[in-house]
Amino acid sequence: MTVIDQMKLFFEPRSVAIIGVSRKSGPGSFNILESLQAYGYSGKVFPINPQAREILGFRCHSAVENIREGIDLAVISLDRDQILSSVEDCLKAGIKAIIIISQGLADIGKEGKILQDVIRDRARAKGARIVGPNTMGVVNNFHDFTTSFIPLAKSPSPLSTICQSGIFFVGSYSLTGPFGKAIDLGNTCDVDFADVLQYYSADEKIKVIVLHIEGIEDGRKFFETARQVTPRKPILALKTGRTEVGAQKAASHSGSMAGKDFLYSSACKQSGMIRARDVEELNDLIRGFLHLPLPKGDRIGVLTYTGGGGIIAVDRMMDQNLPLPQLSPETMSKLSSLIPPWLPLGNPVDVWPSVMKYGARPMYRTYLRALLEDENVDAALCIFLTPRIPGQEFFDVSEEIIEVSIQFPTKPIVVWAYGPNLREMGEKLESSGRVVFLPSAERAVQLLSALMERRKFLERNGRIAE
Amino acid sequence: MTVIDQMKLFFEPRSVAIIGVSRKSGPGSFNILESLQAYGYSGKVFPINPQAREILGFRCHSAVENIREGIDLAVISLDRDQILSSVEDCLKAGIKAIIIISQGLADIGKEGKILQDVIRDRARAKGARIVGPNTMGVVNNFHDFTTSFIPLAKSPSPLSTICQSGIFFVGSYSLTGPFGKAIDLGNTCDVDFADVLQYYSADEKIKVIVLHIEGIEDGRKFFETARQVTPRKPILALKTGRTEVGAQKAASHSGSMAGKDFLYSSACKQSGMIRARDVEELNDLIRGFLHLPLPKGDRIGVLTYTGGGGIIAVDRMMDQNLPLPQLSPETMSKLSSLIPPWLPLGNPVDVWPSVMKYGARPMYRTYLRALLEDENVDAALCIFLTPRIPGQEFFDVSEEIIEVSIQFPTKPIVVWAYGPNLREMGEKLESSGRVVFLPSAERAVQLLSALMERRKFLERNGRIAE
Repeated sequence: MTVIDQMKLFFEPRSVAIIGVSRKSGPGSFNILESLQAYGYSGKVFPINPQAREILGFRCHSAVENIREGIDLAVISLDRDQILSSVEDCLKAGIKAIIIISQGLADIGKEGKILQDVIRDRARAKGARIVGPNTMGVVNNFHDFTTSFIPLAKSPSPLSTICQSGIFFVGSYSLTGPFGKAIDLGNTCDVDFADVLQYYSADEKIKVIVLHIEGIEDGRKFFETARQVTPRKPILALKTGRTEVGAQKAASHSGSMAGKDFLYSSACKQSGMIRARDVEELNDLIRGFLHLPLPKGDRIGVLTYTGGGGIIAVDRMMDQNLPLPQLSPETMSKLSSLIPPWLPLGNPVDVWPSVMKYGARPMYRTYLRALLEDENVDAALCIFLTPRIPGQEFFDVSEEIIEVSIQFPTKPIVVWAYGPNLREMGEKLESSGRVVFLPSAERAVQLLSALMERRKFLERNGRIAE
Repeated sequence: MTVIDQMKLFFEPRSVAIIGVSRKSGPGSFNILESLQAYGYSGKVFPINPQAREILGFRCHSAVENIREGIDLAVISLDRDQILSSVEDCLKAGIKAIIIISQGLADIGKEGKILQDVIRDRARAKGARIVGPNTMGVVNNFHDFTTSFIPLAKSPSPLSTICQSGIFFVGSYSLTGPFGKAIDLGNTCDVDFADVLQYYSADEKIKVIVLHIEGIEDGRKFFETARQVTPRKPILALKTGRTEVGAQKAASHSGSMAGKDFLYSSACKQSGMIRARDVEELNDLIRGFLHLPLPKGDRIGVLTYTGGGGIIAVDRMMDQNLPLPQLSPETMSKLSSLIPPWLPLGNPVDVWPSVMKYGARPMYRTYLRALLEDENVDAALCIFLTPRIPGQEFFDVSEEIIEVSIQFPTKPIVVWAYGPNLREMGEKLESSGRVVFLPSAERAVQLLSALMERRKFLERNGRIAE
């Protein structure tokens, strides 16, 4: 059985045994069977509970050995002292994929780690794989399948994640956005990042891969695998447990060895992964890689309602060692008729004097088009005021930005706006699927810079932009 | 006339002449008179327009010399080639405070700078002060007064700002939040940061001062003044034009000399100012200094729904050289009865196992109280899941957090949450005026760290916390 086939048992099981299903259901009961039912899973489900005949309409079995059908996947949610014997039962029943939800193994220290190793070794001896322990398991929105004990909203997306904490399941609403597939590796006693990366890499539906890493045991295997995946799909990585004390806490959370941070940094870079510094940057990167084209070069044209905002953008461009491109003579002459002759014209382009004279919407459209037509410009950063102030709706240039983004599909546009209704404006712009909205000029530049790095990486690897 | 009396002419004028008022009004007309009217200003207003007899119900004069009453403040909004003679008219009429809205002086280069210097010298010779040019002027929400040519919503607050770009007027909705007073210094040819700082410092209604600095000519005067203000009120500073190219752009925006960034950094620190790295951090700091008590020490207790989130917080605490306090034996024994004996207990405190067993709201309250009762803990970082997922409303612990914040008024509480409705949750928590909500653990720790630095600064200066 290949690793990919093994992973399919976890993500696309035809039948699943859930061991340790409670009779409680409803809010706060954290019942995996209930989540799975709500998800509309169409495979066979075998709840195991020796005290119950039926739960939520499913017939219960007292033990896996009593199920006289093939089981692709077992999900164990029992007290820690029952785990070993339950795994033994699963192995005897010929089950090759086991998720251990329960806490209390390597996550509580040495004693738990010893038991965890025993469990893993038994499974391996039988050719079975284990996810966890201390995990929320798996979500596959393309297969209506989940082992999450917290109900999730289904919203398939070409983003898929591999994490070591359930926060990336229940927090996906704000941390990553909707995902197609997700796995919480928990203590990562057996199935690891590299295994799932291979599976995600082969899945055509997955375009962007996100990793939340607390620690990795087999760094060589991981980085080798990542190196094979990154020329085809971007891998965005958030490493936590970066500091020594953070790493100690990671050891007691997922039992992970967090490793030296600078080694991760350099290995990430060498293997072509993109590392996010925090959850906010991770979210920015995800939206950028999902929705924006990779710029052909690193020259950003800045279009702004305010000189003060343009300066903030330029500072970050310099921090990132990006150039500040000059506009071409053609662009200059196009725009110079729109401003008084004594006003300086350059990049950042201050559209304000023209807005005051000729109106916001036509001017923003004209300027942005001129900027993106310029062969010296590879990407645009748009700065403007969001309206919702009575009498100032005319400042809303979001439709013009979307319109121009369609005319220039190879040049990414990011937006930083200020004003009273940032969220509505962000949703409006991003619903176009062509523009990414960021809450600061710094983050907008940071994102463009990451897209540029990706383009260079693909070029170095002999691949044209995706 | 003291500097404070001079500044009062700009912020609290009893009468104002507006020179260069257009007959156009409504959206997109950028009419200062209209903004002022909408603001409900109760002083005398004299619009100057030789072509009009009346605008918006105000009788027009053809020139300032024809106004036979005392004028506290003149606001000039004319083409650049008319500015000098208009200023001369104002000086002849005995006006001691002039705001020059118009662009086209030092902001366009050397020629404009020469003219600007001439204007400033003429004013100084007559004992008059100038704000600008290239400015939106002044807003004083305590005096119903504004010279902004973009209408603003009135919402007085103990925050007041001094900036060099109108973005901090119209962008205040998202960048700083509501302010009580604000001034855009524009090219800063005469009235400068130090002048306004003295005025703000003496104003009992102002609790927090925000600076947006593109460049400062007289650094010694500025930092000396700041040093006198900071022991009484926090000054939060955003410096832009940090990089060489950014500084060049600042020179052509507000005609400012941006100066070497590392010198600013060290002078900011010495004078007790708090420097924000970007607009997002500025906004965090503002809310923190407006709403939170200063912690007595630097020991943060972290309460989290998720071990993974706690690790992220610990990383940033280590980055900031903050300790990770141990919980006292009393706290440990209070909490240990709520979890299985084999589960590790420490800081960060993982409330999750208790949430699963006893429910989110009672457990979060119990744990947070225990944490803040602990004499080893000076501040709390709360991490939780925001609900709005059907059946998961029970995760909402915002009311418990607010309740506990009232019981521990001397220990600041910051919140990082993840989930679908961050904005509503943030508004709910912050409407209490006692808790600050941040979009990442990193920013939450960063804010607490700034409050701790402020406390230390006040202690060094022989002042107890405000």
